[in-house]
Amino acid sequence: MATILKRLNLEVELVTVNFGVYRSWVPALESAKALGFPHSILRLDRSILDEAVEMIIDDGFPNNGINFVHRQALEATAGEYDIVADGTRRDDRTPKLTRDEIRSFEDRNSVEYINLTGFGYKTINRLASQLFILKREKSDIHNNSDYEIEIRYLIDKIRGMGESLRFFPEHYQTRVIGWK
Amino acid sequence: MATILKRLNLEVELVTVNFGVYRSWVPALESAKALGFPHSILRLDRSILDEAVEMIIDDGFPNNGINFVHRQALEATAGEYDIVADGTRRDDRTPKLTRDEIRSFEDRNSVEYINLTGFGYKTINRLASQLFILKREKSDIHNNSDYEIEIRYLIDKIRGMGESLRFFPEHYQTRVIGWK
Repeated sequence: MATILKRLNLEVELVTVNFGVYRSWVPALESAKALGFPHSILRLDRSILDEAVEMIIDDGFPNNGINFVHRQALEATAGEYDIVADGTRRDDRTPKLTRDEIRSFEDRNSVEYINLTGFGYKTINRLASQLFILKREKSDIHNNSDYEIEIRYLIDKIRGMGESLRFFPEHYQTRVIGWK
Repeated sequence: MATILKRLNLEVELVTVNFGVYRSWVPALESAKALGFPHSILRLDRSILDEAVEMIIDDGFPNNGINFVHRQALEATAGEYDIVADGTRRDDRTPKLTRDEIRSFEDRNSVEYINLTGFGYKTINRLASQLFILKREKSDIHNNSDYEIEIRYLIDKIRGMGESLRFFPEHYQTRVIGWK
């Protein structure tokens, strides 16, 4: 998403949300640096993370909690930028804004919202592997800046080490290391 | 859409659908030339246009007929390209593929489909006016290559001159004239 907007001549800044629980922004900062994008950390109130963790433990699955954090993150960025974009793809279910949520978000904040809903995962994978050097690896606390990281950190702290695996099973991810 | 894909290093060809009823591709060819994109005309069977016109006259509004033509156009391009893209935006209602239609289209044809559903009209207008020289004018048979043109031509022929205005009211459009 950032590369598309940059190549359409917009000024782009990458933003990682953080709640002060764990330094989860480091992998995102490294990827941003490797591609030459400016990067900033958006510090949100710890109570948002607490509420998300409560939702996830109550629900037994992470979708609603992740969606909640994503909406809070978008609202917080809206004050700082004319355009707020994220990389959610056509196949993604969570986080995802509905059409009505997008309209409301744009109107309330006088902001434009963009995502990658027009693109499926096959096309994203094709484009990413043509443009970027990618590293495929098991996702962990040291190589991932998703909302998931601080949520897992907090669940393990509250419920005991490894308990977050009930809600977020181990998975592989692809990380951007540089330009091809 | 074409500019995004080109700037992501894909090879792009612009396609205009035509049914042999009227030389509707000329304005699209001119815009393509002005931007340096290769352009081709995809000739579809006249019976598709006849069916669309019948639907539109029966319905009293153009949505279903336009959607029908668009689906036929996509199916026909799928044999020729690895990726089929159109410029439908988040706010567009017609033509528009549902998620299920996209999945079916991609799977049946082993093709990737992309559109601009991630982008709202405000963002498209912002980007287009930053990138292109645009001409705002009343849409007519000489400056527009939409499916609408041949459909209107045929309705006027069948039902009498000017009758197509019942289904497609006069409107203004923005046409791409060149790069800024």
